[in-house]
Amino acid sequence: MKTLAISIGDLNGIGLQIALEAHAIIKTKCKPLYCIKETMLTQGALLLNKEVPQDFTCIPCGKDFKIKPSMPTKKSGAYAFASFQKAIELTQNAQADAIVTLPINKEAWQKAKVPYKGHTDALADILNTQTIMMLGCQKLFIILYTHHIPMKDVSKHLHVKELQAFLLAVQEHLHVSKIAVLGYNPHAGDNGVIGHEDKAIKKAIQKANKALGADVFNGPMVPDTAFTYNNTQNYTYFVCMYHDQGLIPLKTLYFEESINVSLNDKIIRTSVDHGTAYDIAYKGITPSSVSYLNAIDEALLLSDANK
Amino acid sequence: MKTLAISIGDLNGIGLQIALEAHAIIKTKCKPLYCIKETMLTQGALLLNKEVPQDFTCIPCGKDFKIKPSMPTKKSGAYAFASFQKAIELTQNAQADAIVTLPINKEAWQKAKVPYKGHTDALADILNTQTIMMLGCQKLFIILYTHHIPMKDVSKHLHVKELQAFLLAVQEHLHVSKIAVLGYNPHAGDNGVIGHEDKAIKKAIQKANKALGADVFNGPMVPDTAFTYNNTQNYTYFVCMYHDQGLIPLKTLYFEESINVSLNDKIIRTSVDHGTAYDIAYKGITPSSVSYLNAIDEALLLSDANK
Repeated sequence: MKTLAISIGDLNGIGLQIALEAHAIIKTKCKPLYCIKETMLTQGALLLNKEVPQDFTCIPCGKDFKIKPSMPTKKSGAYAFASFQKAIELTQNAQADAIVTLPINKEAWQKAKVPYKGHTDALADILNTQTIMMLGCQKLFIILYTHHIPMKDVSKHLHVKELQAFLLAVQEHLHVSKIAVLGYNPHAGDNGVIGHEDKAIKKAIQKANKALGADVFNGPMVPDTAFTYNNTQNYTYFVCMYHDQGLIPLKTLYFEESINVSLNDKIIRTSVDHGTAYDIAYKGITPSSVSYLNAIDEALLLSDANK
Repeated sequence: MKTLAISIGDLNGIGLQIALEAHAIIKTKCKPLYCIKETMLTQGALLLNKEVPQDFTCIPCGKDFKIKPSMPTKKSGAYAFASFQKAIELTQNAQADAIVTLPINKEAWQKAKVPYKGHTDALADILNTQTIMMLGCQKLFIILYTHHIPMKDVSKHLHVKELQAFLLAVQEHLHVSKIAVLGYNPHAGDNGVIGHEDKAIKKAIQKANKALGADVFNGPMVPDTAFTYNNTQNYTYFVCMYHDQGLIPLKTLYFEESINVSLNDKIIRTSVDHGTAYDIAYKGITPSSVSYLNAIDEALLLSDANK
């Protein structure tokens, strides 16, 4: 049975509740190591009016603080980062096979002066490796070529060499037989009538396929029909040129089920694809654990494939 | 009973077949005037191996030519344009209440030297009026602020005054109680952290609402969660900043059902939201008429609302 390091996320949000409520299922699939001090666990469980399961294995980390439900605080930010660091450490030391992260709050990280915007860029910097952002579920995975940058800057990144290298890195992690690649402009440029970037995308695809000796990458696809029923029956993996090109259809189709995967060559890390949901945290409402359970399953799948 | 002028579209494509097959249903809803010469109708029906219904009212237009199934020809382009012109004429002369257009082929229009890219810009020029492009179905309508322009130029149009005027023009045509307006950047800019355009969108919304004396426009919404189930239960009309922001979710959810509506202050025009489908034209395959029937229904709805 695989061991997973669970980064507990922002304790002022819904993460701990999800971890406690899903534990009974999780423990049938893997051995979870929860990166949280017992004192903090007890405090949180009390606020949630929940019993702590006997076999809930805690790995101490961070400094104790008073949980303030639904508030992005400096202390909750610092704790969430400490938990994430511990999870990375466990995985690097081979005490865990992969990391699953519960949601952090970006504002709390800022307050705690954590020098990262989120898990993905923290991981890339700490491990000193390229990290590719993939989001989705087994039915549809989106791989983002650019993500949290202004829309008007996307075009600057659409060059043949940069994109070709990205495509090859994607396939190095995925090892699948076919991957869809979206165009950039309306109608994928209508043969150069609407913008020029789609020609660069086409060239990058051709060069990547040539380097692989197989037609793995298909495109540039016309963006607005890429996610129709027929096409999603043919493809599971879609490389998208910008954040909303991929995340609009993903969240439109599979909002609750989606997870976030950091593709890199050092550590397997999956995550829920939702936030801290401060609006319902510690309010007696049961949050959905679908994304968390999918993140666990995907981490196990990926660590199986890697062995 | 209302009268609709049917622009027959490219006769080398699937339009005529759809018109013939749907006629039995259409005639129960309205009085259709088909803008096609009887000689051309007979030629097409023969190729399709179909009988021409007795009550299929033809309005002559254009020059006879030999139908070449699945080919974008100069003559098919010229005929499609002549049919469209006739439909406009009938509506302007009050012989018809609205126009419904079957698909044309843009390449054929180019070959025929028709000086327009498509119906929407032809209509705007011929009627000398602003024409707003709305696509969708009764469950979800997308209103495009920009459409067939390169993605890297979208940002240049996101200015308060221009957008505010657009929003007010939209509401002048729709008269509804609430309309969603999408942001532009990932996470609608995350409070200015990712790009600056979303602030202009916010201001334009505020000014438009102030001018209307009611909070009709809501946004800027985070684009990637705008089309989740909960939000589409709350809104039917979505103003989108660029082509694929609106058409990706629309075609992902309602590919077959969608129609195209030209909002303007002179003529009601709806259209199918698919192409000439040369791949199946005159091949004994029955094309879906869902989009055509929806276009008929919407034209009738809009002409009722206008009277």
